[in-house]
Amino acid sequence: MQSARNRATVDTVALRDYLHDGRNLWEQRCSIISILMKEPAFNTPGKEFKSRSERFKDGLAKTKRLYELVDEHGWTTMHVTFAVSAMGETLPINLHNVAFEPVLLSQASKELLEQYSDLIIQRGILGCYLQTELGHGTNVAALETTATYIPETREFDIHSPTLTSSKWWVGALGKTATHGVVQAKLILPDGTDVGPHLFFVQLRSLENHRLLPGVITGDIGPKAFGGYACVDNGFARFDHVRIPRWHMLSKFAQVTDDGKYVKPPHAKVSYGGMLYIRAGMVTNAGWSTAKAITIAIRYASVRRQGSKGPDGLELPVISYPSVHVRLLPILARAYVFIELGRATTRAFMEMSERLARGDASLLAELHAMTSGLKVLCSTTSVQDLESARRSMGGHGYSAFSGIAKLYADLVPSVTYVLNLNLPSLNEPHPSCSSYEGENYVLDQQVVRAALRTFTTLISCAKTQSQDKLNELADSLPPSSIYLKRLLPGPDKRPSEPPVLSEASWADPGVLISLLEWRAALLVHEVAQTTDALEATIYQRVSKAVTEAFVAGRVGEMLVLLNEREIGPKDKEVVKRVYILYLLTTIESSLTDFLSFGLLRLPLRDPSSSGSLSRDPTRGLRLAIARLCEDLLPEAIGLTDAFGFTDWELDRYSVSRFIMLMLMAMLSALGVYDGQVYKTLWERAQTEPLNQTEVPDGYEEYIGPMLRRGQRLARGAKL
Amino acid sequence: MQSARNRATVDTVALRDYLHDGRNLWEQRCSIISILMKEPAFNTPGKEFKSRSERFKDGLAKTKRLYELVDEHGWTTMHVTFAVSAMGETLPINLHNVAFEPVLLSQASKELLEQYSDLIIQRGILGCYLQTELGHGTNVAALETTATYIPETREFDIHSPTLTSSKWWVGALGKTATHGVVQAKLILPDGTDVGPHLFFVQLRSLENHRLLPGVITGDIGPKAFGGYACVDNGFARFDHVRIPRWHMLSKFAQVTDDGKYVKPPHAKVSYGGMLYIRAGMVTNAGWSTAKAITIAIRYASVRRQGSKGPDGLELPVISYPSVHVRLLPILARAYVFIELGRATTRAFMEMSERLARGDASLLAELHAMTSGLKVLCSTTSVQDLESARRSMGGHGYSAFSGIAKLYADLVPSVTYVLNLNLPSLNEPHPSCSSYEGENYVLDQQVVRAALRTFTTLISCAKTQSQDKLNELADSLPPSSIYLKRLLPGPDKRPSEPPVLSEASWADPGVLISLLEWRAALLVHEVAQTTDALEATIYQRVSKAVTEAFVAGRVGEMLVLLNEREIGPKDKEVVKRVYILYLLTTIESSLTDFLSFGLLRLPLRDPSSSGSLSRDPTRGLRLAIARLCEDLLPEAIGLTDAFGFTDWELDRYSVSRFIMLMLMAMLSALGVYDGQVYKTLWERAQTEPLNQTEVPDGYEEYIGPMLRRGQRLARGAKL
Repeated sequence: MQSARNRATVDTVALRDYLHDGRNLWEQRCSIISILMKEPAFNTPGKEFKSRSERFKDGLAKTKRLYELVDEHGWTTMHVTFAVSAMGETLPINLHNVAFEPVLLSQASKELLEQYSDLIIQRGILGCYLQTELGHGTNVAALETTATYIPETREFDIHSPTLTSSKWWVGALGKTATHGVVQAKLILPDGTDVGPHLFFVQLRSLENHRLLPGVITGDIGPKAFGGYACVDNGFARFDHVRIPRWHMLSKFAQVTDDGKYVKPPHAKVSYGGMLYIRAGMVTNAGWSTAKAITIAIRYASVRRQGSKGPDGLELPVISYPSVHVRLLPILARAYVFIELGRATTRAFMEMSERLARGDASLLAELHAMTSGLKVLCSTTSVQDLESARRSMGGHGYSAFSGIAKLYADLVPSVTYVLNLNLPSLNEPHPSCSSYEGENYVLDQQVVRAALRTFTTLISCAKTQSQDKLNELADSLPPSSIYLKRLLPGPDKRPSEPPVLSEASWADPGVLISLLEWRAALLVHEVAQTTDALEATIYQRVSKAVTEAFVAGRVGEMLVLLNEREIGPKDKEVVKRVYILYLLTTIESSLTDFLSFGLLRLPLRDPSSSGSLSRDPTRGLRLAIARLCEDLLPEAIGLTDAFGFTDWELDRYSVSRFIMLMLMAMLSALGVYDGQVYKTLWERAQTEPLNQTEVPDGYEEYIGPMLRRGQRLARGAKL
Repeated sequence: MQSARNRATVDTVALRDYLHDGRNLWEQRCSIISILMKEPAFNTPGKEFKSRSERFKDGLAKTKRLYELVDEHGWTTMHVTFAVSAMGETLPINLHNVAFEPVLLSQASKELLEQYSDLIIQRGILGCYLQTELGHGTNVAALETTATYIPETREFDIHSPTLTSSKWWVGALGKTATHGVVQAKLILPDGTDVGPHLFFVQLRSLENHRLLPGVITGDIGPKAFGGYACVDNGFARFDHVRIPRWHMLSKFAQVTDDGKYVKPPHAKVSYGGMLYIRAGMVTNAGWSTAKAITIAIRYASVRRQGSKGPDGLELPVISYPSVHVRLLPILARAYVFIELGRATTRAFMEMSERLARGDASLLAELHAMTSGLKVLCSTTSVQDLESARRSMGGHGYSAFSGIAKLYADLVPSVTYVLNLNLPSLNEPHPSCSSYEGENYVLDQQVVRAALRTFTTLISCAKTQSQDKLNELADSLPPSSIYLKRLLPGPDKRPSEPPVLSEASWADPGVLISLLEWRAALLVHEVAQTTDALEATIYQRVSKAVTEAFVAGRVGEMLVLLNEREIGPKDKEVVKRVYILYLLTTIESSLTDFLSFGLLRLPLRDPSSSGSLSRDPTRGLRLAIARLCEDLLPEAIGLTDAFGFTDWELDRYSVSRFIMLMLMAMLSALGVYDGQVYKTLWERAQTEPLNQTEVPDGYEEYIGPMLRRGQRLARGAKL
């Protein structure tokens, strides 16, 4: 490992500061972690062996201690975020922090805030966000829970009329939350249903945590792969629960005392929360990928197998092309997603500021952008985690390898939708529609937005002057810039895709242009299709559009990189990492590039003339292989730059596992053998099954089974 | 559900008999299951909540009861196989059955069999197979464990010289097995290392199950995603353990009393076992996929969401193209893999019979064939399980959806290799080599075999007469038949890929030809590449070659189908299922087909002339969309034909979950509501966290946390 580390030339400190957005933030993060490391609540061993009930309780212990630490050290919200992310465990309190609190603070009336905002901010009450129902996903228009206004008592009657209206999947609802924001159809006294609105409902007594009358909740049971073990995703039914009128979140829409509905000033003002969560998902995808690839690259640098190298030892597996050509692109995606998450959060902040001033102009753009990013980042990072785990071969299937737990916690990001249900964006295309509950819904919305912009642009190209068209083209938001490729240039000549040479593969400008062309041509293809659509087209188009958008952002990252305090050699390495991202993005959708003739190469291999034609994708693939080989010596340095402490990785028992592997290798050379053996022995002893030499079940099952067989074998011999 | 079932026209009974290889086998299977269903040991509730230690013990209880049932009912080995597969749980005894027993029975000496065969067959001893080591995968040449012959005592000394030589991952070793077959380097008295051989070693006392002196074993801990929970994968170190000379598995190679090594008659005779396991993996992939797709299709037929249909209810989600275009191809793969597994097992049987007569002529073919199939089937089925789970949207993330457990148990099939280490097949290509530990190793071997046949064929084409060439072409084994495409036809004119029309997509002959052409052109591409290879080429070629082979088998299945007792309409449906398999196989590798110009269409959309070109993949994609729509009414019938009992699916709590969803839908119509509510309530109550209204941890953590926040909120107000 040390020799792999020495081979890297990059300045890991400078890169670390770059990835963490500056030295100051990095140091604050370190100070938080150094405190957590010493806390018993954050150092509970044997997580892999615990039941879910035990894990849930451990999570509560962490949460309690976390807020004690806030008091002791005066931590800010940002510090809490650092701490939560470093402990690597999803806790029920996260739902309070990312959904309940922001929704309430941004949408509650003055009176409600007057009474509750301090309790919410200080977590004197714990909240959850009740949207999904047993029979209904994020298509909030179909929700069945009702909130009927009773003018006589100035109350809402919250009710679950059917089993399918049971709230389901709600994080922290099962056992933890005292209050919740309930999404329910608002029914006026005259019976009019004015659609889903949000209501603040107390669920449990603050005296003894028992359920309030009419509220039935519980935990919905364990999750796939053992994911989200600490979170009490719950169900709830409401049996005519009454809440005061002012408990409706009525900053925008409201109901008057006598039951008149007052419309919100703008239909879209209440959708900021979901966008905030989506923006966070990009960042989370980046750092989850970073953690998994740190584990996988370290393991692959230490694990030796197969042919002998010049040092007489078997080669580290990372030196095999089949291994590093999988791992380095994952590393590149982690680098891109971390920066992308930062850019998306910035865009969200700007939109929020405008929205607060009643300006919703950026909402549609941010909606389309984050829909696509949510799909792309969740799908890609989940897949990358599993690829990283599998690259570790047999040992990757051990729970101690750590990546499986990351996967179990990240994989629901693919199937929860965070849909906004903006009706104008949601009409399904007749032959190609999807249902909510997965990423496919969001794909639709990306395509719809793209088609709208495309249509505007084309009709403008037909009817308006070139100047007008140029103006329109220049005003395209970042998510639509790729469509410019279809327009004639300022010189009125039609644009054309780049002609490729070997040098193209090292030129980010060409790669970005290719990705934009592919998106533009696919949108054009859908737009001109008036008959049947093939069933996967929305997925393809959405991916293409989003990848074109991200390519544009990578272009920006390359510009911004020049302004950062990093040495020129390091900039060159990061630049190559970004180029690897672009190359492998193209590789993963070669079908599109070939279909639209975007890989036309001027050069032909002379040896193949007359013979069967050579593979046109070879140039790109070779460029990837070479770039990976090129970056290989920097692999450990580039992962070190993520800055994960041993403590963070230890939480997954990983660095210890890697340490063991490393020492095991050394032990083959006769070094440190005694100590390795002792450490490994200790680790194995923690497995509960190893607490006895003869397992529980021997007397009852194994023994009788063996004696039966021995009896039969004797009989068979007679 | 009933209405979806009524819509199907297929005769599910006839198809069920087809999938189960005849009515007789189906009925035997049913009789086994009807017995298991009534057994308490096979009906333990709450699996999702149990710790691994409890799951392990439950597994032992099942195993003991299973063999009692064997005695009570006189079950054959086949019946036991039915029972093990129906209970849907991987048990330690499986390792005895699929590895320990066949290896010993086929490779042990007469003396060893004389003493142990009955004990092994009756399970009076329980065995495991110790190959993998902590530092070494299936590259057995690198194993470090030694077996040194001591002529003085006529014993072998089994020893683990290093930590990395610790046997690791061995199923049933940790706590269950009494004996094992140990793979170790055989060291002769003069110090010569003659490479890995197999040795029969007792691990635990048959009196009290305690470890024998010099043997150190234990469980290696939990697996990723909670998979293989009942199996005690273990580690072992041997400290100079002595075994008698005749405990070496010496049917082929042996050591004489005075320490001379006697070579085996044929180096390859001992590799049958791994091929047997690989053949079984194809079948297992088929039935696992069948189970997952039964769950997913039933759920998608019952779950309603989105737009309203003609009946005024929301549409069942399966009616959305984005859903059924994912699910039906998975169904098709289950159909193909089940038949393919049967064909592979037949091929294995034939090879074994020949091998028993000393004829190893089929070994290389079966090795290449099963290497490719192992990679293809494991990769595909694992991916299909996860796609099926995700198609269930949010509810798919519940452990109760059942597919996650299937995935956790199937996913290691991707990373264990079952490599044979035939040295002649293993030399890595310098720029493109892989390491053992994953499917990539097997890809290499497939490519190597393909290149060898290609080279023979091409040199023959250059130097031999057309008759000679025809003869050679006709003698090609099934795994290489695709290479014929590169040869001139009997009329000496060069063959050409088919020209496609819309009708091509319904013609299995054309589709098979396309898949064979693609494999042939890719092998040709690699063969003519003398400089750098791109890093993923082995994967691409291996996939292409294996898919061409499977396409050929699908062609055979279509022929055999005609001889089966199924009505003509049903045959037509199954034929379309097979065509869907071929179409989606092409779709998944469109890049290859486009790269080698195999999708050239004669027709051009006239509307696009002069404009930007249309997508050449559109025809294929539309054909898939249409075929899926076509098969949609049969979906429930085709999954019913797999014949899973409610009991089998109930083991994953799935049918109960689906039942709840179904009844929940009905309940929205006001039917059965009381009962649903009661059932759901009972189900939720089994969650341990729901055993108390106020959770364990409230007094200790939640309460203090809330009081802290309330205190701070009060303070903030002052």
